[in-house]
Amino acid sequence: MSARIRLYVDQPLGKGQAVSVGADQTHYLTSVMRLGAGETVLLFNGRDGEWRAELAEVARRGAIAICAVQTASQRMPPDLWLLFAPVKRDRTSFMVEKAVELGVARLLPVATRHRNSERLRTDKQQAHAVEAAEQCGATFVPEVAELQPLDHVLAGWDATRTIYWCDETRAGQKTAFATSGPAAILIGPEGGFSVDESRHLAGLPYVTPLALGPRILRAETAALAAITLWQAAQGDWR
Amino acid sequence: MSARIRLYVDQPLGKGQAVSVGADQTHYLTSVMRLGAGETVLLFNGRDGEWRAELAEVARRGAIAICAVQTASQRMPPDLWLLFAPVKRDRTSFMVEKAVELGVARLLPVATRHRNSERLRTDKQQAHAVEAAEQCGATFVPEVAELQPLDHVLAGWDATRTIYWCDETRAGQKTAFATSGPAAILIGPEGGFSVDESRHLAGLPYVTPLALGPRILRAETAALAAITLWQAAQGDWR
Repeated sequence: MSARIRLYVDQPLGKGQAVSVGADQTHYLTSVMRLGAGETVLLFNGRDGEWRAELAEVARRGAIAICAVQTASQRMPPDLWLLFAPVKRDRTSFMVEKAVELGVARLLPVATRHRNSERLRTDKQQAHAVEAAEQCGATFVPEVAELQPLDHVLAGWDATRTIYWCDETRAGQKTAFATSGPAAILIGPEGGFSVDESRHLAGLPYVTPLALGPRILRAETAALAAITLWQAAQGDWR
Repeated sequence: MSARIRLYVDQPLGKGQAVSVGADQTHYLTSVMRLGAGETVLLFNGRDGEWRAELAEVARRGAIAICAVQTASQRMPPDLWLLFAPVKRDRTSFMVEKAVELGVARLLPVATRHRNSERLRTDKQQAHAVEAAEQCGATFVPEVAELQPLDHVLAGWDATRTIYWCDETRAGQKTAFATSGPAAILIGPEGGFSVDESRHLAGLPYVTPLALGPRILRAETAALAAITLWQAAQGDWR
């Protein structure tokens, strides 16, 4: 049972490697999960796969775990990014959690003309991404980038990465992924993109509109649906 | 702007039809949305499409709206049911909301051996389904059935309706929809189905296992992903 507890740590993992577990994670292991010295946890760091480690020293301020056996090799998500306009906090957290489970490589919050949220706590959203990876068995945690204006992101875009633009005005049209290769899904705010933004996006050669059925999906629903369809067509669900 | 407010009402709709709006909806229209007599709302009842209606009499205890013009014809979702084991309340609500947006015809909560939740407030979940339909532009509200044991549901199952069984032990296998026709998606509890349940499901001729990528998805994520894939393959997203 205890070996089912998975923790993300930003330290090297390898046979015999000692890993220091911080105060928060130690509190979780000892006070919440009631683990003590000699019990095992699973560790991953986004680079070295997943390791079974034994708790060797356990104190209030932290613990030491010793890596014993690699239990999963490192597996990177496919090269899919999610660009999203922050919505209400719970729904943004949900979008981040689900994107990690479904499998994305990077999360880029973008500021659009119509805003649903004035602030984005990137650190909190990064923590949600870590929790989701711990939960879903992933060995990688996608970065949650700092919020940037959509214009800036598009101005510096690498044109070899296709942007699938979820455009709610296309409800009812056919959904298709035009190309393989690096990709990103772009989800707008509640209320959609502005006329200027839509015109700009429609004129970019690396942007492909994506329709998601006849109903108007909330932002987080559109994100999950688009990631799912891309994963099944181009990603690691094939 | 006011014509964007959509309300589900369980009353006949048609040209010139007077519809009585209950106290709760009237409170929403007047105190929250600040509408008064002469302003318009959109109404749907799951049978007669969507109608623009004008508020004719507005009082504290209720209002009367008169249907003017049909603004959308009745559109039924495709014949897909969602069978799901209730999880924590927020996640169950989320699953219900998203299933309505993505498009299902019926929601059937099922009690499985591993339970994550002792209670399910069907009335609350039905209210979530109504809100989701109001929000997403659907003209139909799926029924949320009463919780029933999975065994009973399977014992009375119509074998012409394929059950796509989201089986987390198949993570990494290929996802495919075997047949067209009436369908249901079956999502288990956190912790999965019991050995007996899995054996029983695997032996039923109308049950097809469905794999959803290499990561372990939470119940609500699996539900959304499976509905999305079915909609794109067999449903009204084609």
